[in-house]
Amino acid sequence: MILRNKANDHRENGDTDVTIEILYCGICHTDLHQVKDDWGMTMYPIVPGHEITGIITKVGKKVENFKVGDRAGIGCLAASCLECDFCKSSQENYCDQLQFTYNGIFWDGSITYGGYSKMIVVKKRYVVHVPESLPMDAAAPLLCAGVTVFTPLKNHNLIESPKKNIGVVGLGGLGHVAVKFGKAFGHHVTVISTSPSKEKEARDRLGADDFIVSSNPKQMEMGKRTLDFILDTVSADHSLGPILELLKVNGTLVIVGASSSTIFVCLNTNAGKRTVKGGIIGGMKETQEMMDLCGKHNITCDIEVVKPDDINEALGRLARNDVKYRFVIDIGGNSSSL
Amino acid sequence: MILRNKANDHRENGDTDVTIEILYCGICHTDLHQVKDDWGMTMYPIVPGHEITGIITKVGKKVENFKVGDRAGIGCLAASCLECDFCKSSQENYCDQLQFTYNGIFWDGSITYGGYSKMIVVKKRYVVHVPESLPMDAAAPLLCAGVTVFTPLKNHNLIESPKKNIGVVGLGGLGHVAVKFGKAFGHHVTVISTSPSKEKEARDRLGADDFIVSSNPKQMEMGKRTLDFILDTVSADHSLGPILELLKVNGTLVIVGASSSTIFVCLNTNAGKRTVKGGIIGGMKETQEMMDLCGKHNITCDIEVVKPDDINEALGRLARNDVKYRFVIDIGGNSSSL
Repeated sequence: MILRNKANDHRENGDTDVTIEILYCGICHTDLHQVKDDWGMTMYPIVPGHEITGIITKVGKKVENFKVGDRAGIGCLAASCLECDFCKSSQENYCDQLQFTYNGIFWDGSITYGGYSKMIVVKKRYVVHVPESLPMDAAAPLLCAGVTVFTPLKNHNLIESPKKNIGVVGLGGLGHVAVKFGKAFGHHVTVISTSPSKEKEARDRLGADDFIVSSNPKQMEMGKRTLDFILDTVSADHSLGPILELLKVNGTLVIVGASSSTIFVCLNTNAGKRTVKGGIIGGMKETQEMMDLCGKHNITCDIEVVKPDDINEALGRLARNDVKYRFVIDIGGNSSSL
Repeated sequence: MILRNKANDHRENGDTDVTIEILYCGICHTDLHQVKDDWGMTMYPIVPGHEITGIITKVGKKVENFKVGDRAGIGCLAASCLECDFCKSSQENYCDQLQFTYNGIFWDGSITYGGYSKMIVVKKRYVVHVPESLPMDAAAPLLCAGVTVFTPLKNHNLIESPKKNIGVVGLGGLGHVAVKFGKAFGHHVTVISTSPSKEKEARDRLGADDFIVSSNPKQMEMGKRTLDFILDTVSADHSLGPILELLKVNGTLVIVGASSSTIFVCLNTNAGKRTVKGGIIGGMKETQEMMDLCGKHNITCDIEVVKPDDINEALGRLARNDVKYRFVIDIGGNSSSL
């Protein structure tokens, strides 16, 4: 794995840029796909990482909202057109000229390199403040995993709504944060998982109210038409049919896992007038709002911190789903326990 | 094929029942599935048919809104609980005790028999008026095909909205009516089909504004992010991925075809925050509203009328997609051309 050290690998800090000394970077499942070129779009050499926290070391002269020394977070977005309706409404994540923090092509034609690196130069628009109350390591995965599950909850008015029955499919990097959000926002949260062994942890430590083993027909039958909303965080290909049956009529399932294809069973959707919706991360305004709410509710990711030398081992364990719940690289060497 | 002739095959006309002398009955693709027990739920002997028009010959003493001699239509619904929220809001089609016009189990425990029959006894709640302006033969398929495509348009406020770009996938029994509704409601309608040969008819006779051959990559590329709403009427299994790409960000695709499974490609949904929604027919209020609007806009199905003796041949042709666009059985022997 390449760890980039030289500032001159990056562009100069322009008028609207900030330079960040990276402290931590989460390892997202996407990193694994991109490193292995699973999606056939990797431009080697690649420097992954889009769950970045660090300290600002330089700001351009047209940067007003950040100063040297600020705690900053950078997620998936590196550039967008700034002119379309999506950019204007801070849904930059749906701009059709969107470029990502790594393996993207920046405005000047250069390839973007991500957070497995000592520093990074970023346009001010794509930087958020990290609240003082949050530890920088456990906050890092919020920049992708966090906002990915937060945005659908916000879009479906579940932040300040009356209590709803919410299902979270999959208890991994995304799912465990989804459970925390669901509980923080006052909902009844049911975890749906293939692993009976996760029940105790889901209930006792994450605060889930219910747990359904998806391979247990009796439990699935009992759960029929009970949920108002489901977040499906599973990245492996799977059938939505049985999961859709858990939704009430008119209920909505949002897919946020990045599976390449998923079997969509029409009979289950049609018979319940159910909705399946997609979404990808969130816009910058939503990302800052998510960060601020995490600060308020003290929500972070459960992480395993690894040294830069151990990235390859961590990627191997991630491929085997052997992580609780997110690896974070200690880029700055600040975690004394390592 | 069984054609039922004796009134005593049916229950007596109760206080809230109407008896109908059947004139016409459409042949829906569902009939084919049920006759062949494709879904493993057929209770033989079966009498299919849920696209029924006829004349009322008897009304119970608690029936106020129908009288002997009225032109009546019966669709898919035969019974529901009458007490749940769905029944109370005339979304009987989502009642979890819903029973269908044929191959269902009525309140008294008897099996329901459908419209391939001389007469039928039906609860008044599940009967609609057929406007005088509509021919009884070409109106029959509206009871299932018509309301199936009408209801999603209504639910998404597309009856009286400003002009939208609407896509209709598949130009068969459902699709051709969907094009007529789309044009009647003032929208720009694009047909998406695997058959280039259907383009002329779609444009010249049905009034479609555009035509995309789904197997033509260039046309599909040109159509990206152009549609606000898509009705997918295809009953064969297929991938939604390429079709979803035709939707704008935040666009909605409603599946009304009865395919058993369909590949749902997450990347296409997620990247565009797109919605895939299911639906099944419509409630009774929606069915009457649809009928009235068809009367106003002079919308009917394009049909081929067949004699009762030719039902089996028609089912065979339907299985080979050899029909334009719907077979209707001339139960009453009124079509002089046969």
